[in-house]
Amino acid sequence: MEPKPVKSTITVMTELVMPNDTNNLGNLMGGNLLRWMDIASSVSAMKLCGTQVVTAAVDSVSFREPILLSDVVCIEAQVTRTFNTSMEIYMEVFRESLKNPGRKKSNVAYYTFVSLDGEGNPQAVPSVIPETDEEKERFAGALRRRQLRLVLAGRMKPEEATELKSLFLKDVVG
Amino acid sequence: MEPKPVKSTITVMTELVMPNDTNNLGNLMGGNLLRWMDIASSVSAMKLCGTQVVTAAVDSVSFREPILLSDVVCIEAQVTRTFNTSMEIYMEVFRESLKNPGRKKSNVAYYTFVSLDGEGNPQAVPSVIPETDEEKERFAGALRRRQLRLVLAGRMKPEEATELKSLFLKDVVG
Amino acid sequence: MEPKPVKSTITVMTELVMPNDTNNLGNLMGGNLLRWMDIASSVSAMKLCGTQVVTAAVDSVSFREPILLSDVVCIEAQVTRTFNTSMEIYMEVFRESLKNPGRKKSNVAYYTFVSLDGEGNPQAVPSVIPETDEEKERFAGALRRRQLRLVLAGRMKPEEATELKSLFLKDVVG
Amino acid sequence: MEPKPVKSTITVMTELVMPNDTNNLGNLMGGNLLRWMDIASSVSAMKLCGTQVVTAAVDSVSFREPILLSDVVCIEAQVTRTFNTSMEIYMEVFRESLKNPGRKKSNVAYYTFVSLDGEGNPQAVPSVIPETDEEKERFAGALRRRQLRLVLAGRMKPEEATELKSLFLKDVVG
Amino acid sequence: MEPKPVKSTITVMTELVMPNDTNNLGNLMGGNLLRWMDIASSVSAMKLCGTQVVTAAVDSVSFREPILLSDVVCIEAQVTRTFNTSMEIYMEVFRESLKNPGRKKSNVAYYTFVSLDGEGNPQAVPSVIPETDEEKERFAGALRRRQLRLVLAGRMKPEEATELKSLFLKDVVG
Amino acid sequence: MEPKPVKSTITVMTELVMPNDTNNLGNLMGGNLLRWMDIASSVSAMKLCGTQVVTAAVDSVSFREPILLSDVVCIEAQVTRTFNTSMEIYMEVFRESLKNPGRKKSNVAYYTFVSLDGEGNPQAVPSVIPETDEEKERFAGALRRRQLRLVLAGRMKPEEATELKSLFLKDVVG
Repeated sequence: MEPKPVKSTITVMTELVMPNDTNNLGNLMGGNLLRWMDIASSVSAMKLCGTQVVTAAVDSVSFREPILLSDVVCIEAQVTRTFNTSMEIYMEVFRESLKNPGRKKSNVAYYTFVSLDGEGNPQAVPSVIPETDEEKERFAGALRRRQLRLVLAGRMKPEEATELKSLFLKDVVG
Repeated sequence: MEPKPVKSTITVMTELVMPNDTNNLGNLMGGNLLRWMDIASSVSAMKLCGTQVVTAAVDSVSFREPILLSDVVCIEAQVTRTFNTSMEIYMEVFRESLKNPGRKKSNVAYYTFVSLDGEGNPQAVPSVIPETDEEKERFAGALRRRQLRLVLAGRMKPEEATELKSLFLKDVVG
Repeated sequence: MEPKPVKSTITVMTELVMPNDTNNLGNLMGGNLLRWMDIASSVSAMKLCGTQVVTAAVDSVSFREPILLSDVVCIEAQVTRTFNTSMEIYMEVFRESLKNPGRKKSNVAYYTFVSLDGEGNPQAVPSVIPETDEEKERFAGALRRRQLRLVLAGRMKPEEATELKSLFLKDVVG
Repeated sequence: MEPKPVKSTITVMTELVMPNDTNNLGNLMGGNLLRWMDIASSVSAMKLCGTQVVTAAVDSVSFREPILLSDVVCIEAQVTRTFNTSMEIYMEVFRESLKNPGRKKSNVAYYTFVSLDGEGNPQAVPSVIPETDEEKERFAGALRRRQLRLVLAGRMKPEEATELKSLFLKDVVG
Repeated sequence: MEPKPVKSTITVMTELVMPNDTNNLGNLMGGNLLRWMDIASSVSAMKLCGTQVVTAAVDSVSFREPILLSDVVCIEAQVTRTFNTSMEIYMEVFRESLKNPGRKKSNVAYYTFVSLDGEGNPQAVPSVIPETDEEKERFAGALRRRQLRLVLAGRMKPEEATELKSLFLKDVVG
Repeated sequence: MEPKPVKSTITVMTELVMPNDTNNLGNLMGGNLLRWMDIASSVSAMKLCGTQVVTAAVDSVSFREPILLSDVVCIEAQVTRTFNTSMEIYMEVFRESLKNPGRKKSNVAYYTFVSLDGEGNPQAVPSVIPETDEEKERFAGALRRRQLRLVLAGRMKPEEATELKSLFLKDVVG
């Protein structure tokens, strides 16, 4: 399997916030944004591996400013790094409103997908080649985020999370 | 504002997985489950505070076994603890299939909501009274999860996360 | 086929009334409630028989007070009694609004489902064991409601409806 | 308010059964047909009274043969008679499949709607003029069906249902 | 294959404009009307040929007056003429609003469909027999519209469009 | 109103074809693609004028190869030219399937939108500055397409369509 440049996995998705996407205050419901991000990132994953994929993990996401009815939401997704049968996807979410033209970054998020073969079993995925500085930084950070994901899911013991210890905890523990 | 028992916030939501909820392999798309969890937990939050609420954060979620077309998904949500204007909701997700009767726990997740007044500004929420052992344990753990959430969102410095240090990191750092 | 207690078939479904569920006055459209009740009661039926089911009949339903945009609708369904290949389901519908906290009973309804095998032919279903007083009362009344259903569908002659005659008509005819 | 001929209220609605309208066996879910019938009959009611309307009652409905994925469903609705602020609507449902051309009657049903003014209060509706023999027969039968509806909803005592007694019960009691 | 009269292909579809069908001004989005017209005309095509069909072309459509939230939209479709494996469908779109009773013609449009066999290959369709004057006029004009369609899609050279030249261009060129 | 470069109006929309978007053969329904194109092009129009917009016209569209279930559809839209209160949008539609990686151009289309002020009346829009050769070519061709649109809608006499005569008809008439 030939490695592919990160940029070959970029996916851009634009959605218009319609009445049924909003709550009673006219704000986009968080759950709808989570669903759109799932679709955008799965397309990015499929571009890399050319197979069906399933969502394996969603990293913690925080929502700040409300997105309003009839705002335009733009999600840009790309694969950051792959791990045997799984892929981490990075997304930036932008919003643009008629009253405040110009798009503003609203969220960032990481989703992880697993590639499946025809029988639904995990299968190996090609690796990605980061080219820009941001791509390289996210490629490096992917190890750390993967360990945090495994620790939070109870599938890795904290003391085995060596990347977490050296990078994330250096500020915590000093 | 009178505190309310946790059990007064319990919300049970049942959904049948329909064709449009699935991907090409006939599995429920992760993004749809995230959206259903958002609705179930927002109802739990509204039961506590009696006001409109907005999603503020979703903790990291991992998906293990696939949920299939025509499976029944059951989400049980309850408020674990409140923090001035926000509420943490705990959810357990169960699946049941015709071929394998009896429901199985599929996921757990924490979502955080903020209560809003008529102008869309955050407002104080009542506190909850945990009664069972599990409720008390989740009440206690909420501080720790809140600090991790703030650290991951870049809104708290790791060295200020005192709860995290004492509880989560004791295994990491020894 | 082992009989099962009624309580093993209980299904609780919670829905939030969203803009597209309402008419121009901001009230939940009756047809949407009928559709949600169909899903909730089919899940109850599937819990009993573990097979695919199809709606066979809906008893007459009356709608009283309007349910409003952003109200929470809660449907509780359970099997009342079975008849060879069909099951009668009883449902209570509750509504709760932010402005009037505390849930209020809004409707009751009976739906009937038929269990189907893999080829789509009706097949026998287990019977249910009523345990509480209400369950026993609904179990007894099921015969009467079934006869009314058959008479109204033109599939039973009124003079054969012996249960109807003795119970429902005693007040009518004296 | 000028009476209007029944035929001025006729509404024809055609729907194509799509994947999400079906259950796991590829049959149209009963709840979706109930929802389509609610929309078709509400349009018929609005044609008569020119105001917003809400569903007040659905008479008992029975489903016989399954309607399949990609079948065409055609619903024909018309007002049969009005009662101060409410209207009874009669519907015939037809299905047509590619494999068995020619439409077949699948169901008949009666829904009742109430006309509302701008504040959501019931208001008087014009009466209808039945012209054909079928229209006249349904006009006459509407009194009987209304009494059954009120009795089943617990809003009329059986002994007051004079129409029911004379028409429906003559066969029952002899 | 027996020719069929045009009137055997007539399809009437009624839709109520709901919140999610509208834009921020409360007007029906053009794209939703295009989608409804696609469904209505495909049903008309299936009535003629009794097979699956796919949209091959949409002629230019212009939208004049806005259609509003809670208006009733009625689409009437019929096959005008067939060409070996394809069928041209003519549609009239009417709107009716509570405030302005009586339906008004809002649009006309032509869609073209191709009949497919079980493997997805085009197959011959029966011809239609126009009976009324309007049907005959649309039957005759179909040749001209087909040539314009082919020229605009780059699949016919303008100089080969003999029908276009004699009929459409007589006014242009004199 | 400051003119804006065409590239400031570019909108990219990605959709995954889901079960309910397809017909019985598993192909994307033409009507759904028309609806997605309406949303993508309306976002492009709103980026230019910063106001609400409504669809005024859809040019003739032809569909060639089928787009399949779980294919990825990508729509790229941009404003080509403006006319007082209206804007012409050009779109290219690409499809990508798991089995045939690499995106393929599937369609091109032109939609026209009108800018509306708060009362729903048309208002002037800024002009666009074409920069690349393709943008300049589409800018020039917009006059011709506009005349054809007006002629086909019966709002311009063919003999007044001077652009059409000189450009489009030179091949037809020689």
